[in-house]
Amino acid sequence: MHISIDDIEQQDKRYRTSFVNSLAGFRQAVLVGTIGANEIPNLAIFNSLIHLGANPALFGLISRPNKVPKDTLQNILETKYYTLNYISNNYYKQAHQTSARYQSNVSEFGEVGLTPIFNSPFPAPFVQEAVVKIGMKLEQTIEIELNGTILIIGSIQQVEIPQEIVSPDGFVKLTEQDILVSCGLDAYFKTEQIGRLTYAKPGVLPNEIV
Amino acid sequence: MHISIDDIEQQDKRYRTSFVNSLAGFRQAVLVGTIGANEIPNLAIFNSLIHLGANPALFGLISRPNKVPKDTLQNILETKYYTLNYISNNYYKQAHQTSARYQSNVSEFGEVGLTPIFNSPFPAPFVQEAVVKIGMKLEQTIEIELNGTILIIGSIQQVEIPQEIVSPDGFVKLTEQDILVSCGLDAYFKTEQIGRLTYAKPGVLPNEIV
Repeated sequence: MHISIDDIEQQDKRYRTSFVNSLAGFRQAVLVGTIGANEIPNLAIFNSLIHLGANPALFGLISRPNKVPKDTLQNILETKYYTLNYISNNYYKQAHQTSARYQSNVSEFGEVGLTPIFNSPFPAPFVQEAVVKIGMKLEQTIEIELNGTILIIGSIQQVEIPQEIVSPDGFVKLTEQDILVSCGLDAYFKTEQIGRLTYAKPGVLPNEIV
Repeated sequence: MHISIDDIEQQDKRYRTSFVNSLAGFRQAVLVGTIGANEIPNLAIFNSLIHLGANPALFGLISRPNKVPKDTLQNILETKYYTLNYISNNYYKQAHQTSARYQSNVSEFGEVGLTPIFNSPFPAPFVQEAVVKIGMKLEQTIEIELNGTILIIGSIQQVEIPQEIVSPDGFVKLTEQDILVSCGLDAYFKTEQIGRLTYAKPGVLPNEIV
């Protein structure tokens, strides 16, 4: 089926949102934990974590204009700190539920049934249930003027992770802890490893790393 | 296991690259097709496609400094057009192999064994083997000064996709065509859907969409 830019522009808004969002493929959904001046822990699902670099270790998030995670962005700008908490099979409905439009004076943690924990002196709340928890510090925000979205760039400050899923070469085996991946606005998936491949060099087809 | 920012900074470079890259989670790997002034079709794997918005339909790619896909970035800047081709189970080794450091006067298509096709008048080459092919137009590049990476932003111009994987509500079922997801520098995974959830509203836990 051939779909042109005109076809996409003429799609019904809800259809187009779902089509383009899911066409963008699988992404790492994370729960972003923050706390504001009102001292209410805030939790919001973001459906794409972006790897920007390893040294310094920088991850990005995309914040949409006029969307639910506005409290999250506000809190990050105010406090400079936030947490990334990976979503497992056993609480993905609670994670999805954080995208409901709760009032600013309500904590999504309590509403959806997840537990905030503070790992002092880190100033933002983690999700106790998450098997991988990352503490982040805001480095920069970049507004993308084409559509008003904001790229939030942060540096990794600390990582809580089960030792057994970190391979001797540094590779993190997220699949072994049932960490989910998302696609589109509302779909969640588990993963199964096909293979890891050797570093590619001209003239030699890659082999599987055993 | 607790890992601090100091621990990460003291990691061996290869270990850190693998650790931080895989910690960033699962992403949509795509093959980016371009053609330069030398008329040699170029193909490079990028391991993260970023959804930036549905209206206009904008996707992002991250280009690292001093890395293999330099020809790709150069070609995109020169011609303004490029293609995104999704990677299936049956040719993921060929896809990975495009990350080898081939000379600029060599076409990765021929070297790895994938077939370039042109869909006139679209000026960039698609991968014939890809079940989902997207034609993109460059809209903007943004340099992230923190580490010299470049965010390439493009708009969708055309999509070739099997009709049977587009749901009546617009959701694209990539899993049904064995479209792979990547993690880290060298790992590839297939996906299995856990569920799609209803739009989240305060006070009502989401249900699965059947």
